[in-house]
Amino acid sequence: MAGNTFGQLFRMITFGESHGAGVGVVIDGCPAGLEISFEEIQAELDRRRPGQNKLTTQRNEKDSLEILSGIFENKTLGTPITFLIRNTDVQSKSYEDIKDKFRPGHADFVTQEKYGHRDYRGGGRASARETIGRVAAGAIAKKLLAEVGIEVEAYLVQVGKIKQTGDLRLKIEDYTEEIEHARADGDSVGGIIEVVAKNVPVGLGEPVFHKLSAELAHALMTIPAAKGVEIGDGFASAEKRGSENNDELINDAVGTSRDLSAGQIRTKTNHAGGIVGGISNGENIVMRVAFKPTSSITKKQMTVDKDNNEVEISVHGRHDPCVALRAPVIVEAMASLVLVDHYLLDKSSKL
Amino acid sequence: MAGNTFGQLFRMITFGESHGAGVGVVIDGCPAGLEISFEEIQAELDRRRPGQNKLTTQRNEKDSLEILSGIFENKTLGTPITFLIRNTDVQSKSYEDIKDKFRPGHADFVTQEKYGHRDYRGGGRASARETIGRVAAGAIAKKLLAEVGIEVEAYLVQVGKIKQTGDLRLKIEDYTEEIEHARADGDSVGGIIEVVAKNVPVGLGEPVFHKLSAELAHALMTIPAAKGVEIGDGFASAEKRGSENNDELINDAVGTSRDLSAGQIRTKTNHAGGIVGGISNGENIVMRVAFKPTSSITKKQMTVDKDNNEVEISVHGRHDPCVALRAPVIVEAMASLVLVDHYLLDKSSKL
Amino acid sequence: MAGNTFGQLFRMITFGESHGAGVGVVIDGCPAGLEISFEEIQAELDRRRPGQNKLTTQRNEKDSLEILSGIFENKTLGTPITFLIRNTDVQSKSYEDIKDKFRPGHADFVTQEKYGHRDYRGGGRASARETIGRVAAGAIAKKLLAEVGIEVEAYLVQVGKIKQTGDLRLKIEDYTEEIEHARADGDSVGGIIEVVAKNVPVGLGEPVFHKLSAELAHALMTIPAAKGVEIGDGFASAEKRGSENNDELINDAVGTSRDLSAGQIRTKTNHAGGIVGGISNGENIVMRVAFKPTSSITKKQMTVDKDNNEVEISVHGRHDPCVALRAPVIVEAMASLVLVDHYLLDKSSKL
Amino acid sequence: MAGNTFGQLFRMITFGESHGAGVGVVIDGCPAGLEISFEEIQAELDRRRPGQNKLTTQRNEKDSLEILSGIFENKTLGTPITFLIRNTDVQSKSYEDIKDKFRPGHADFVTQEKYGHRDYRGGGRASARETIGRVAAGAIAKKLLAEVGIEVEAYLVQVGKIKQTGDLRLKIEDYTEEIEHARADGDSVGGIIEVVAKNVPVGLGEPVFHKLSAELAHALMTIPAAKGVEIGDGFASAEKRGSENNDELINDAVGTSRDLSAGQIRTKTNHAGGIVGGISNGENIVMRVAFKPTSSITKKQMTVDKDNNEVEISVHGRHDPCVALRAPVIVEAMASLVLVDHYLLDKSSKL
Repeated sequence: MAGNTFGQLFRMITFGESHGAGVGVVIDGCPAGLEISFEEIQAELDRRRPGQNKLTTQRNEKDSLEILSGIFENKTLGTPITFLIRNTDVQSKSYEDIKDKFRPGHADFVTQEKYGHRDYRGGGRASARETIGRVAAGAIAKKLLAEVGIEVEAYLVQVGKIKQTGDLRLKIEDYTEEIEHARADGDSVGGIIEVVAKNVPVGLGEPVFHKLSAELAHALMTIPAAKGVEIGDGFASAEKRGSENNDELINDAVGTSRDLSAGQIRTKTNHAGGIVGGISNGENIVMRVAFKPTSSITKKQMTVDKDNNEVEISVHGRHDPCVALRAPVIVEAMASLVLVDHYLLDKSSKL
Repeated sequence: MAGNTFGQLFRMITFGESHGAGVGVVIDGCPAGLEISFEEIQAELDRRRPGQNKLTTQRNEKDSLEILSGIFENKTLGTPITFLIRNTDVQSKSYEDIKDKFRPGHADFVTQEKYGHRDYRGGGRASARETIGRVAAGAIAKKLLAEVGIEVEAYLVQVGKIKQTGDLRLKIEDYTEEIEHARADGDSVGGIIEVVAKNVPVGLGEPVFHKLSAELAHALMTIPAAKGVEIGDGFASAEKRGSENNDELINDAVGTSRDLSAGQIRTKTNHAGGIVGGISNGENIVMRVAFKPTSSITKKQMTVDKDNNEVEISVHGRHDPCVALRAPVIVEAMASLVLVDHYLLDKSSKL
Repeated sequence: MAGNTFGQLFRMITFGESHGAGVGVVIDGCPAGLEISFEEIQAELDRRRPGQNKLTTQRNEKDSLEILSGIFENKTLGTPITFLIRNTDVQSKSYEDIKDKFRPGHADFVTQEKYGHRDYRGGGRASARETIGRVAAGAIAKKLLAEVGIEVEAYLVQVGKIKQTGDLRLKIEDYTEEIEHARADGDSVGGIIEVVAKNVPVGLGEPVFHKLSAELAHALMTIPAAKGVEIGDGFASAEKRGSENNDELINDAVGTSRDLSAGQIRTKTNHAGGIVGGISNGENIVMRVAFKPTSSITKKQMTVDKDNNEVEISVHGRHDPCVALRAPVIVEAMASLVLVDHYLLDKSSKL
Repeated sequence: MAGNTFGQLFRMITFGESHGAGVGVVIDGCPAGLEISFEEIQAELDRRRPGQNKLTTQRNEKDSLEILSGIFENKTLGTPITFLIRNTDVQSKSYEDIKDKFRPGHADFVTQEKYGHRDYRGGGRASARETIGRVAAGAIAKKLLAEVGIEVEAYLVQVGKIKQTGDLRLKIEDYTEEIEHARADGDSVGGIIEVVAKNVPVGLGEPVFHKLSAELAHALMTIPAAKGVEIGDGFASAEKRGSENNDELINDAVGTSRDLSAGQIRTKTNHAGGIVGGISNGENIVMRVAFKPTSSITKKQMTVDKDNNEVEISVHGRHDPCVALRAPVIVEAMASLVLVDHYLLDKSSKL
């Protein structure tokens, strides 16, 4: 089944294995005439790229972008846009010893069972390298959103046991020790990322099965290692009362909080996280996605090999001790792709 | 946009407004030859039906099923299956006073903004009555899954502040007081439902964008009032270490826990919740979905009317004080629909 | 597979067997706010209805429309629109003798092979009654097109050996004899229908796989008994030279032929049939679809029965001697559905 | 809108402009484990490649294949397969003079109107080079079909006024003069291609909107310059009687014509062209597609330029005098892609 295609009108298909020729993406359905430069796309790829600080994997990929189609004279043509990023720093050798052992927490076993044939040199499509295509497509999506004033930003709110409290963002020094300790133990930690979309117009989302909240949840849950997602007060709302959780509507005559025309209807609070009944209500869209700790750890674990023998395994190679660290740009990409798609869908819902 | 269509190969489209002629569903893509009786489908509808205990709304709908197409001599034809359930106990009168006021927490305002025209007699498509079609389709999906041994069950694990601890299921007496207190205050409470799918074969899910976990998350988040979803250890895994969270693979030679052939590869624990890399691994699939408290409360709130005036509102009518109470059968339906679709998709992934 | 769903943004799913409870359609994706009356839809159904003249089948169905959802106060809600037409004049008895014999030219054999289980009381989904849902959906599509000035009309250009020459439309007296002779012989005849869409704006169609011409061809070829389709000069263009076939572009400064602003670019001729490179060019879209003669004939033929015995068959029941006669309204419906979908799709191709 | 995506389960998306970096295709949904060599795919590309005889364009492209993903150790991985073919012999200079003039019969004008921005250096996506991706994907599709015994072959049955009569295939010498004469006049000719699919199992096709005949028609009509398509007796059946056109069913006890088990039900004739009611009946599928004469001719024509001035144009560059000549391999590719998709869809229609 065509499982690598995402989106209705603004669609992407990512391709490439971690240890093959390269990875990339084709975007089908991008409107023509969008101005976008090589540098703007490469800049997003650089945000995702490992090796930028001491807390991430040392795999040293330049992730150099090549534009194969769809952009001419720095403007989109309305034709498929293809981005290719070659794999250069491929060290298949380090994977030799795990060729026949299924790594716990990884897709090795299920991939072997489902497809019968796999590229044992690395994670294949389950590798974080697959997300490069998403980030490249996300660069286009963000630029489109920017044209209509929508901004999308994602950031860490939890790394292992270290959590953001109040509005002050987590900084690298806040969680360095948490990660260094895990790494010293040959171990890894999880994390939570929050994403906020600002200035989303009222009306995006297509009930009842393509609610904006449901599609964002879907998109975020496709990111490797994602284990949960919530919107607004999310799981916490389960123990609240309706009178606490409902957002009262107000007439924001003064339009203090945003640059809106007087008379705009707003909500006083935003427990809903910007989406009601699956449709955006004009408030900030706020979602959180939980990432499990990196599955690849050097610490010894038990597993089975391809002959069903129970064996010990220690996963070497170059892995992030916390996948969430590099994930904000991926979260932004996925959220942006959904928003662009729904922006276009909503336009088409009016004659 | 065609937002009311769900599924790829096994597809449903629900139709109907809460105060129109009726609600229903068309299922397109159900394999031919499935034996299913009228009673089996009606029984699922009865599970969802209100008025079954004192904690739910008193709207008294029989929810009588009519089969319009697709089933002949108690077997599916492979053609579209259509179920119609007439609306009978429609009391539009009670909605008269809220015709022009946007109810907080409801889709009234966004619906008006998006479509310009709405059936102000009730919640329209945002009403819980829309889920009747899902439940009817779910009855078919469950029967199909049963043919291949898969079972799906959902149950409450939290009602307001009352939470399940350990393995003992919550019973109605556990949370009666929580709900009665809220109702006495003209208020409502939220809840959390857990769903478990047993005997799912290894290999369901279509990475990277139609991962089984992402599609289940999508499906569950389309249920009215859903605010979050997680799989396995979910949000809790964010603060764990990899060595705690990874599920070690074992050779379940004895096959104690399930009726499997010796030599089956299993995992020792199930922190992942039955899905790894977006593909089922043969363990129980375990997910949880958080529901916000019912938006309709008699307690006074502020809102705006259609002329942008700030006004007081007290939402009368017949509403559940806790939407989660009747939601397990809906959760089961949505999860089952995804599983059937992926069961069929997986078949098509082999030549 | 969900084979009964048609369209991307403006989508319909038809349901119902010829000898079941009824037939109908759900339209998912119709923009809100379209004014449409019960009578406008019923009028289209009446155009398709048999028994209107002596040349069609005598099955006497009123084809009475019931609107189940999606329309409120004579305006579309933006929610799924459901139309149900009950089957009333069902004479299953006349089909008793063909229950076990596969009718030549019919889908009986392939349906049995594909699904294993079929409603042997009639043609099931392969019956012309299935097209009632299409015609009802087409009424909505046409009304939407009318809002933007697009008109769609279909008419017979050939009945058996009787062909239109020049611009003068065929009239019923032209082909009455052709049909009466065939009927007298217990036989049937084929025909060709031409469809013209006027005032289609420049730019509809989504190359390279959703070209407007390809989607129209697809749509028309789904009509029962359709065996070929062509656009503009079609098959005749194969033996022409480029200099004959190319349509020269002109500056229609005077705008004689249509009510267009001066300076409009037109083509001098319309060999292309209004679509170039899969995109509408503003000229009339002109297509033709060929229908085979009705498969059901009383004349004796050989066939096999369900036990693989070769047997003689004479198909009684009430059948049109020429299916093309009642097909223009179906052709208009299918063409209109494609045009609406592409009208909405084109809107979404611009930011 | 995502117009460059084709297929449901076996899906391709082609990319690339004629004068950009290259062209190619991503195939999403190919089952894992199919053995396929580089050479098998390159061989199909070579069949399409120009410059192979004196009757085709002299654009000299090697069309060298590069495999970017999805194939490992000569076997498909079940992941997206990406093929890239670089553009090398790009002579943009020859297009300079037509940069501002809309070529008659070409998509220049409609592309400019629809997208506002286009790659004026050549035909962009409307160029025949776009079909390279289709042919590469077709190579995979054919190999899959071969695994289950299905063969697909296309061939010319008409070039300009030269038509095949009887069963004897047209040879290059038959139509050389027709083409040379046209070329000498600075002109071009059209043609008709027939495609036959053998050994297609009974049961492919998903009524009522994804009938095999309709999807094949759709696929063939997406090929540049296609103007009509028919199945079996096609347009000729319109003037026949039912008794002539119906294919009687027989019990092919001897199974002479195909290697089938005794008792197989066949049809005596094949006027239907192998598809009845939209479902394959086991007979050869036979379709024809009409191609218009090449639009690019050196002969002088009138057109308009981008400032709406009426101007003379003579289209130079390197063009085929008859596009149909190189199209058989494209026709085979498109037909094969549809057949594979429906083969997989049919599998998924059974539990």
